[in-house]
Amino acid sequence: MNIAVAQSGGPTCAINASLVGVFREALKTPEIDTVFGSINGIEGIIGDDLIILNSAISTNEDMELLRQTPSTILGSCRYKLPDAETDETPYIKALKTFDKHRIQKFVYIGGNDSMDTVVKLSKYFESIGRSDIKVIGVPKTIDNDLCVTDHTPGFGSAAKYVASTVQEIIRDSRVYSIESVTIIEIMGRNAGWLAASTCMLRANGEIAPHLIYLPEGDFSVSRFVEDVKCQQAKHQAVIVAVSEGVKLDENEQGSSTDAFGHIQLSGIGKRLERIIAKEINCKVRSIELNVMQRCSSHICSKTDIDEAELIGACGLKAAMNGESGRMMYFKRLSDIPYVVTVDSVDANEVANTEKPFPKKWITDSGNNVSDEALRYFLPLIQGEVKIAMKNGMPLHFMLK
Amino acid sequence: MNIAVAQSGGPTCAINASLVGVFREALKTPEIDTVFGSINGIEGIIGDDLIILNSAISTNEDMELLRQTPSTILGSCRYKLPDAETDETPYIKALKTFDKHRIQKFVYIGGNDSMDTVVKLSKYFESIGRSDIKVIGVPKTIDNDLCVTDHTPGFGSAAKYVASTVQEIIRDSRVYSIESVTIIEIMGRNAGWLAASTCMLRANGEIAPHLIYLPEGDFSVSRFVEDVKCQQAKHQAVIVAVSEGVKLDENEQGSSTDAFGHIQLSGIGKRLERIIAKEINCKVRSIELNVMQRCSSHICSKTDIDEAELIGACGLKAAMNGESGRMMYFKRLSDIPYVVTVDSVDANEVANTEKPFPKKWITDSGNNVSDEALRYFLPLIQGEVKIAMKNGMPLHFMLK
Repeated sequence: MNIAVAQSGGPTCAINASLVGVFREALKTPEIDTVFGSINGIEGIIGDDLIILNSAISTNEDMELLRQTPSTILGSCRYKLPDAETDETPYIKALKTFDKHRIQKFVYIGGNDSMDTVVKLSKYFESIGRSDIKVIGVPKTIDNDLCVTDHTPGFGSAAKYVASTVQEIIRDSRVYSIESVTIIEIMGRNAGWLAASTCMLRANGEIAPHLIYLPEGDFSVSRFVEDVKCQQAKHQAVIVAVSEGVKLDENEQGSSTDAFGHIQLSGIGKRLERIIAKEINCKVRSIELNVMQRCSSHICSKTDIDEAELIGACGLKAAMNGESGRMMYFKRLSDIPYVVTVDSVDANEVANTEKPFPKKWITDSGNNVSDEALRYFLPLIQGEVKIAMKNGMPLHFMLK
Repeated sequence: MNIAVAQSGGPTCAINASLVGVFREALKTPEIDTVFGSINGIEGIIGDDLIILNSAISTNEDMELLRQTPSTILGSCRYKLPDAETDETPYIKALKTFDKHRIQKFVYIGGNDSMDTVVKLSKYFESIGRSDIKVIGVPKTIDNDLCVTDHTPGFGSAAKYVASTVQEIIRDSRVYSIESVTIIEIMGRNAGWLAASTCMLRANGEIAPHLIYLPEGDFSVSRFVEDVKCQQAKHQAVIVAVSEGVKLDENEQGSSTDAFGHIQLSGIGKRLERIIAKEINCKVRSIELNVMQRCSSHICSKTDIDEAELIGACGLKAAMNGESGRMMYFKRLSDIPYVVTVDSVDANEVANTEKPFPKKWITDSGNNVSDEALRYFLPLIQGEVKIAMKNGMPLHFMLK
């Protein structure tokens, strides 16, 4: 029997670790002959664009290197499967690819859009009496906004990068003896998990970020200006963490949308910078952490990478056990000591939905988060991966 | 005898290491009683705002932590001393502070503006018959644009961060099966050293950045568009590294200036993004590496940090040997093996001048740099500092 694995959605530091998890588990499974990697997510399955991972990944060193290489080694896609009743063509093509290569298990690593693909494929195979082909979803997203799972692979590494970088920006912001406001824009289309995670700096004695704004809170420009003024009375260099999904008002929202109908927002940091420059006479700077949040594997979280590999392995195990149309997820049993188990859930419960940051963890003032959030976040960023270096720069795994 | 040390100009990852160098050397020097730290550069000397470093830094662990803490622990300034003939006031105040605290050696860590201060102070003390007070400059700047010295402390760490991050952005840019252009804006007001240093990725087998533009080259928008089109024929995801100092045309330049009359440029990346969006129909993104370039000590260069400490120590030694009005500098004896020595030069040769990236290292096409540049850069980013972590985040030294 052969299997296939694919990666989808926005890149993270941990999505290759999940692929290694699937691959290593396959090597340990006697029934499995070949592991195919599908190029550019489901598009590779539909278009029969596959590579043989057993040839591409030859040594344990390769696997270790791939685990710490950011982004998706197999490429990604944002392709949304049409309903099979509307257009069966891609399903027929996918089946042809599976049959041609004797692929009976397919593990799809991705976000909530990818879980939509897991649900549709698995339902289709069942509907045509081909439930011998099993489809399992493995979660990933730096946004941490998938339902059911305690957290998502990729988030811990992004949070570790963001917290560490914000801390360095705090040091940088304090050098001159003048009043300043630094606004740091952090990724999170609709959910503020990553921006909220900057509260972890409290654990290391930082007071900043002094203000944290999330899309889950009610944002008001006038209250924001008041908040900043209030912090300026206490701190010479005010640090603001703002989630890219924070909305100013309906007219000012970005208007472009991606294939899934998600609004593409950008520039909240720059817009808040302009507001402060106008309303308060002080030095103001906005900083976008940009794609570095999802690809800075040189400071990835060991917990995150290890868990990403584990959940990938569990995904293949579940498929081998006959599960289909399900997504693997983490269940947290305890914060201290941190204990999680992996289980599976109907992928339908995750597909196309989002888990917002809990309102109960936003402080009453609406401009910060509680220590409960801190306890939730901290375990996810623990530990460092020993990064392979060459010529003073991280070494990445590359397909030959 | 007491001594004083101060930090000035834009922050770097290595400026605290130079301070540790001065401090450790002072502890080893029996004639020295107290090491004063001046708050916010020369402003602290003029305003008698000093702290006793012997109290603030108590253990070897403190020193190790301070070595890897970014930015300036004593704060910084952009204050330019007036000519003593025009306005003697700040000089008289500085002398008062020195005499009050029995300070006879002053080490000023900074860039070419700070060397102007070193020259003026030392000349003034000589002119009033107080050449018992010695003033020595220790270089720093991520821009690497100081004259005489082979390179500047702070540059190696910035280059290591930039190269590593650009490499991760290269991985990130390749995930989708569509044509894209990613423009990365890199610091360097007038000199392109840091943008040029992205050529180091070649040593690890990367072809990208495919295009590198420096202020030292002649930039033309039409040639830029042609360059990008040409690279698109060969590469699906084109990566462009551009120095912030690259000028489009006279009308489009930023117009604000700092206290030293330097033009404050920003946004070349965003402007090139708009040009590509208009001229070429493809996905285009610009990324500003922003202040992270000067404060990301979590991936600092061990060579840089060690050298920064060494040159700080040499600065104090020179002052103890009776030198004044001089700046310490690195002289490279060999690339492979990498060997440097430290010497001193009249600070006047460095003050208020800049060392551009050599034109001979820019390729004839004007859009890349030669392998000679690669050989120059590589030794500067070698080695990693073992970063002290707490709760999964780097631990920073903070003044109590």
